[in-house]
Amino acid sequence: MSDKTIKSLKSLLSSPKRILLTTHKSPDGDAIGSSLALYLYLKSMGHDVTVSVPDDMPGFLKWMPGSDDILIFAKHKKSFEEKLNNAEIVFALDYNHFKRTGNEMEKLLTSSNALKIMIDHHQSPDDFMKYRVWDVMASSTAQLVWDFIVALSGKKAVDKIIGECLYTGIMTDTGSFRFTTCTAHTLRITADLLELGVRGDLIHQRVYDQNSLNRIHLMGYALEKIVLMPEYYTAYISLSKEELKKFNYQPGDTEGLVNKVLSVKGVNVAALITEKENQVRMSLRSVGDFSVNQFSRTYFNGGGHEHAAGGILEMNLDEALMYFEEAVKKGYK
Amino acid sequence: MSDKTIKSLKSLLSSPKRILLTTHKSPDGDAIGSSLALYLYLKSMGHDVTVSVPDDMPGFLKWMPGSDDILIFAKHKKSFEEKLNNAEIVFALDYNHFKRTGNEMEKLLTSSNALKIMIDHHQSPDDFMKYRVWDVMASSTAQLVWDFIVALSGKKAVDKIIGECLYTGIMTDTGSFRFTTCTAHTLRITADLLELGVRGDLIHQRVYDQNSLNRIHLMGYALEKIVLMPEYYTAYISLSKEELKKFNYQPGDTEGLVNKVLSVKGVNVAALITEKENQVRMSLRSVGDFSVNQFSRTYFNGGGHEHAAGGILEMNLDEALMYFEEAVKKGYK
Repeated sequence: MSDKTIKSLKSLLSSPKRILLTTHKSPDGDAIGSSLALYLYLKSMGHDVTVSVPDDMPGFLKWMPGSDDILIFAKHKKSFEEKLNNAEIVFALDYNHFKRTGNEMEKLLTSSNALKIMIDHHQSPDDFMKYRVWDVMASSTAQLVWDFIVALSGKKAVDKIIGECLYTGIMTDTGSFRFTTCTAHTLRITADLLELGVRGDLIHQRVYDQNSLNRIHLMGYALEKIVLMPEYYTAYISLSKEELKKFNYQPGDTEGLVNKVLSVKGVNVAALITEKENQVRMSLRSVGDFSVNQFSRTYFNGGGHEHAAGGILEMNLDEALMYFEEAVKKGYK
Repeated sequence: MSDKTIKSLKSLLSSPKRILLTTHKSPDGDAIGSSLALYLYLKSMGHDVTVSVPDDMPGFLKWMPGSDDILIFAKHKKSFEEKLNNAEIVFALDYNHFKRTGNEMEKLLTSSNALKIMIDHHQSPDDFMKYRVWDVMASSTAQLVWDFIVALSGKKAVDKIIGECLYTGIMTDTGSFRFTTCTAHTLRITADLLELGVRGDLIHQRVYDQNSLNRIHLMGYALEKIVLMPEYYTAYISLSKEELKKFNYQPGDTEGLVNKVLSVKGVNVAALITEKENQVRMSLRSVGDFSVNQFSRTYFNGGGHEHAAGGILEMNLDEALMYFEEAVKKGYK
């Protein structure tokens, strides 16, 4: 953020405002962590703040401070519309196109006259916002929220409760501090959070160690199914609706699985291909020079980051698998 | 380290010495990482240094700078004896009882007249050493080696190459920065290492993402085999020699598996029980108040840390499983 932006934002937030926070569909640890951290901070500054999500979040995030206050659009559309109509400022957290909130919410947000502020680290942002706290090199939106709070109010404004939210966002979006985006700055922020009393070990347990036995069995089953395409340094797992049902699939159950595919020696591109109602969902990871963001934009109606992206195919699973294998062959040309 | 210890060590190392570094059997990322970091540092200070291990290390550590120079006792006993007889100083890294090096090496080390220095973070140290850099709260021996180098020569003595070794030790012994022992100090050291040009993402890949397809299939198979003892908040996986053979088991293939067992909701104590030649090996993990160090000392002829320990049973697998279940019931009384 430039000094000018910081000055403008300080001035904007110097008197109590009605503020609505929004994030993307299928909110993950960083979406929820960054939203709740900003929510708790803005509330402590005397603003009237509502934090909203398009749809519900996974159970392993529901321990988070403030999570009971979250307004779920899919369940409470009227309340959301009222809050939006009433809002002077709308924050877009961890996304940069209104379409990432889903069709209905997108329409409402696009037609809203509130001042819009984006805090995000994804590629190719839309230009809907008045202010951008945007850095594609940042490890997470939570890290940018830390920078935002510290720029406006100093480190003292971050307490243990806000710290737990930020830790969760940073941890989940860096794969526990392993990705390239996890820099010295990221680790020093995290060190500051631990000194506030945040228990990193407990947050890891709460987020990662809540596996049902069904989920562990699904993981085991899926790992035995990996398909290698060695000449293309690619491997994938596919899971049909029937297979998922057999393990009583719950949202979030396949999270992390695609990283296991990437952990196979010699694999630079990994995919998890899951059959949903009337469509097939792609989750893509890579290492090295191969951009799955570009790959997904070209072939899978999606996008994301250089090394982590998602996509959607409107076909059945068998067709999707053939299409995927063809795309890999073309993508490697 | 006290100022007095630092002064003594500085004086001791102010002229070139013949130094032998040793670590424990089945050396892991921290044993090798801390040994190689200290080796490279002492060499750069003009000492004549040999780094040794009781037996070979896993393949996923063989990329490490200096690893080609390591003297493997099991393969080169004569050379080791010569180096030991010739040494003025012996360092014991990442262990605190000579028995942790195995019977033969233990005898040689015990009868050696060299000055002995221990750098370690395990519980209940023996009193064989002249100097101790010992802190049971430290995340890793690598962290203590950082403290040692910085106390003696300042941060400037740590370069990128030494940094890669230290990063590996810290990363592997903190479960990628998640355990309680990973403090603000640990993260700030790691931040300094990244600023030296150490690539945390690549080290993660080199250590964790070298899975053979056999290993991934073994993981999958094992996860489908988890046994729950819900009334004791305990779960375990057992693997027989035949099962391991079916997946062409290589040393290191089951690493991390016990943490997956611990990730099941409601599980506070996890075990991986593997059949070896004429004995059964226990790998134990816990969260909360249950000390697997104590548990293993009482029942499994082993020990380690509060939340991570190992043990050995001299019986067949079926007997070991019955014995384990009984021990759990007694341990939870």
